[in-house]
Amino acid sequence: MPRIKNYVDTSDFTKEELLDILNLGLLIKENIKAGYPLNVLYHKTLGMIFEQASTRTRVSFETAMTQLGGHAQYLAPGQIQLGKHETFYDTAKVLSRLVDILMARVQKHDTIVNLAKNADIPVINGMSDYNHPTQEMGDITTMFEHLPAGKRFEDCKVVFVGDATQVCASLMMIVTKLGGHFVHFGPKGFQLNEHFREIARKNCEVSGGSFLVTDDEEAIVGADFIYTDVWYGLYEAELSEEERKSIFYPKYQVDMDMMKKAGPNAKFMHCLPATRGEEVTDEVMDSDVSIAFDQAENRLTSIRALLVYFMDKMEETTAICKKNLGK
Amino acid sequence: MPRIKNYVDTSDFTKEELLDILNLGLLIKENIKAGYPLNVLYHKTLGMIFEQASTRTRVSFETAMTQLGGHAQYLAPGQIQLGKHETFYDTAKVLSRLVDILMARVQKHDTIVNLAKNADIPVINGMSDYNHPTQEMGDITTMFEHLPAGKRFEDCKVVFVGDATQVCASLMMIVTKLGGHFVHFGPKGFQLNEHFREIARKNCEVSGGSFLVTDDEEAIVGADFIYTDVWYGLYEAELSEEERKSIFYPKYQVDMDMMKKAGPNAKFMHCLPATRGEEVTDEVMDSDVSIAFDQAENRLTSIRALLVYFMDKMEETTAICKKNLGK
Amino acid sequence: MPRIKNYVDTSDFTKEELLDILNLGLLIKENIKAGYPLNVLYHKTLGMIFEQASTRTRVSFETAMTQLGGHAQYLAPGQIQLGKHETFYDTAKVLSRLVDILMARVQKHDTIVNLAKNADIPVINGMSDYNHPTQEMGDITTMFEHLPAGKRFEDCKVVFVGDATQVCASLMMIVTKLGGHFVHFGPKGFQLNEHFREIARKNCEVSGGSFLVTDDEEAIVGADFIYTDVWYGLYEAELSEEERKSIFYPKYQVDMDMMKKAGPNAKFMHCLPATRGEEVTDEVMDSDVSIAFDQAENRLTSIRALLVYFMDKMEETTAICKKNLGK
Repeated sequence: MPRIKNYVDTSDFTKEELLDILNLGLLIKENIKAGYPLNVLYHKTLGMIFEQASTRTRVSFETAMTQLGGHAQYLAPGQIQLGKHETFYDTAKVLSRLVDILMARVQKHDTIVNLAKNADIPVINGMSDYNHPTQEMGDITTMFEHLPAGKRFEDCKVVFVGDATQVCASLMMIVTKLGGHFVHFGPKGFQLNEHFREIARKNCEVSGGSFLVTDDEEAIVGADFIYTDVWYGLYEAELSEEERKSIFYPKYQVDMDMMKKAGPNAKFMHCLPATRGEEVTDEVMDSDVSIAFDQAENRLTSIRALLVYFMDKMEETTAICKKNLGK
Repeated sequence: MPRIKNYVDTSDFTKEELLDILNLGLLIKENIKAGYPLNVLYHKTLGMIFEQASTRTRVSFETAMTQLGGHAQYLAPGQIQLGKHETFYDTAKVLSRLVDILMARVQKHDTIVNLAKNADIPVINGMSDYNHPTQEMGDITTMFEHLPAGKRFEDCKVVFVGDATQVCASLMMIVTKLGGHFVHFGPKGFQLNEHFREIARKNCEVSGGSFLVTDDEEAIVGADFIYTDVWYGLYEAELSEEERKSIFYPKYQVDMDMMKKAGPNAKFMHCLPATRGEEVTDEVMDSDVSIAFDQAENRLTSIRALLVYFMDKMEETTAICKKNLGK
Repeated sequence: MPRIKNYVDTSDFTKEELLDILNLGLLIKENIKAGYPLNVLYHKTLGMIFEQASTRTRVSFETAMTQLGGHAQYLAPGQIQLGKHETFYDTAKVLSRLVDILMARVQKHDTIVNLAKNADIPVINGMSDYNHPTQEMGDITTMFEHLPAGKRFEDCKVVFVGDATQVCASLMMIVTKLGGHFVHFGPKGFQLNEHFREIARKNCEVSGGSFLVTDDEEAIVGADFIYTDVWYGLYEAELSEEERKSIFYPKYQVDMDMMKKAGPNAKFMHCLPATRGEEVTDEVMDSDVSIAFDQAENRLTSIRALLVYFMDKMEETTAICKKNLGK
């Protein structure tokens, strides 16, 4: 049994637990690419609650359940009204009787916290306004697959460029937890706040990693990974689209000059969808240094592992995959 | 083959047929809880037509199909317009060629009657403005699981408190059909009408059960089951929410005093979602006498049995479960 | 591997390739009717993108995937915004990492062309404003099942009555490709345009078929198949519903008189949904000469074959079915 029932926040887990999930994901990926079907979640049902539309997260969870022998139910925005017609508590209790595991993409982080607390089954956070932990696991998996030759992750520098979105916060949380060196390069007023800096500080104390929040462009030199996200549109904001663009452009646009400044190791990452021509140029997105589509694929890689892990099938799955692959 | 192709109305079935389905449900539940997968509906497709949103009914049907080796297609409100772009007849004929069994939650009872009449495959009523027969089967299953010590169902008193909703009518239909003693305790003007009283009368003649419709609180004394439903919001109504609440509150609110008045056997039931603080207090919902979440789980229990029964797999499924369970 | 990765347009394929798919569909149909489950797409995922609502196409694809051992994900109108939040290119690349095969029903033909060009996985056109190729395959399958006694398809006359919809164009494309004799009987201003006549001409040169576009009723004499479609409502039009009806009624309504004029072989076909009383009378729809519901069933027949063919499982599936059926 996993020590913690739910995946709401990476901070709840140890470095070792996260690495276990990461490695499980890579093993299942290898097994499936080699053509061996898995049925470790045979006839199991994942309930997927979406308060917002989603492509990558929804498709990844649904494909993952199929590949593991189970099924995912898509409960679209408006089809379940959490905390409206019915209390969170009652919805959590009812769904705990009808499905085997839940994921939810929610407007407010409190919603996923409440759901996890009241459900009798595992609950996975499919993004809130606070964090995006399944994205984190896919991103870290992608970085491990693309480590510069001869480098350990603990020697890598990961730079997030732009607005302190929940993806930025999530990237910081997992990079510092795993002992990497994290930089948020963003304009004042749009930088990770004290709450997140405190998390980073504590993570680094344990892991030996480091973190820096700055608007000094020099901080990107030597980056192994340059990561960015959209400048607007994720949530309602005080500033208009035009005002937000004027804050980030051109200094925080990832273009080939920025990639060159970062150095020869630097790979480009993006959680997608990208607004090409704004936070990233076509040239970078379409270049060999971009690993954004590998990231998209690794949403699936890590979600398969999370489902297996929280359904308590890690040991069984590992044994099956190793046997299939002759390891 | 079932004597009747469709499950539109409990009144179409004999007590024996309903008990067969009930017992099949309990057997499949035991089999699945014991970890034995079933594939009696392997690769079969259930088409689910929803003219209204639904949580419990939709999730139960979809999970049931997965657990039986098949798949359920969710046709959301607006995705199929029954009787609009296409006649009922044509839609029924077309879907009969493309899926194996249908369920529909409809606005008007006529819709499900028409669909059942024209389809060449089984059709299950997932609730109309007239009745809610899959709820009935789950409710009766829950009562059988929670019979007071030493009592047969035929000795039990089941009291529905509040508005004569379709859930109230459905509860009456199955309780009187199976020989139980049914009371509708509700205010004049919101009591089961003559149409339903006539059904109750005829059921009781055959089954030996009894029924009473009253606004006298004394009628709840000795109840084995106290059941309620929301006071408004199911369908468009002439009265406003406030007017409706003023009719039912406080006399028809199920609180601990009412449960005590009912007596030591009394269990609390609710089809859910509940409006806590209105038709039922938090104290009752969260107490040990509430079996509302067991009811929710038994939506799934009974829906599995209905799918197996109407797909003519009762004999095969019974044999497999008995073998698995060593019975 | 299929010579062409995508099924966007029948014109991309040879007569032999189309007949291979048609025959594969009939073989799988026989296999499934005989009760042999198939798992050639075991644990595979089809992504279904719908920019418009659909009953037949959506249900057929989803049932087909279940019957082949896989799963279909329904991405409803608005759930994926092709070419809006994200470029076609990025969406195509991302989905290529997360699912195994794609289908899309699109508003504009360019959308499906772009998706097919950029995706790294097979893409199937589930209808555009230009054509409806999966409908074509189902229709031709139905005609092959209902050939007049002693006649080859190459000897048959297929008459489409009414507006030059994309279904009319598609019917022309496959009938002339396979060497049949096609007539579009429709009013001037609503006839197949020069672009389509050029395709017909070229097809007939190769296949030995013929085609005619006319408003002369005599052209229907001797028809083996009379096919029609709705007069309005598929797309935004310059003319109102009433104006459109006045153009087609009564001359282009398929009634029993028209069927008699066509002759004793004539079967009635319709892609559905039908507006009974407009383009076709109840009498024709409900008569023995109507094979419209067989057509609906053969949407499923041909879609199974297309999925198997484009997932490169034709050889394997053929071998399994032949073994199952003792052929």
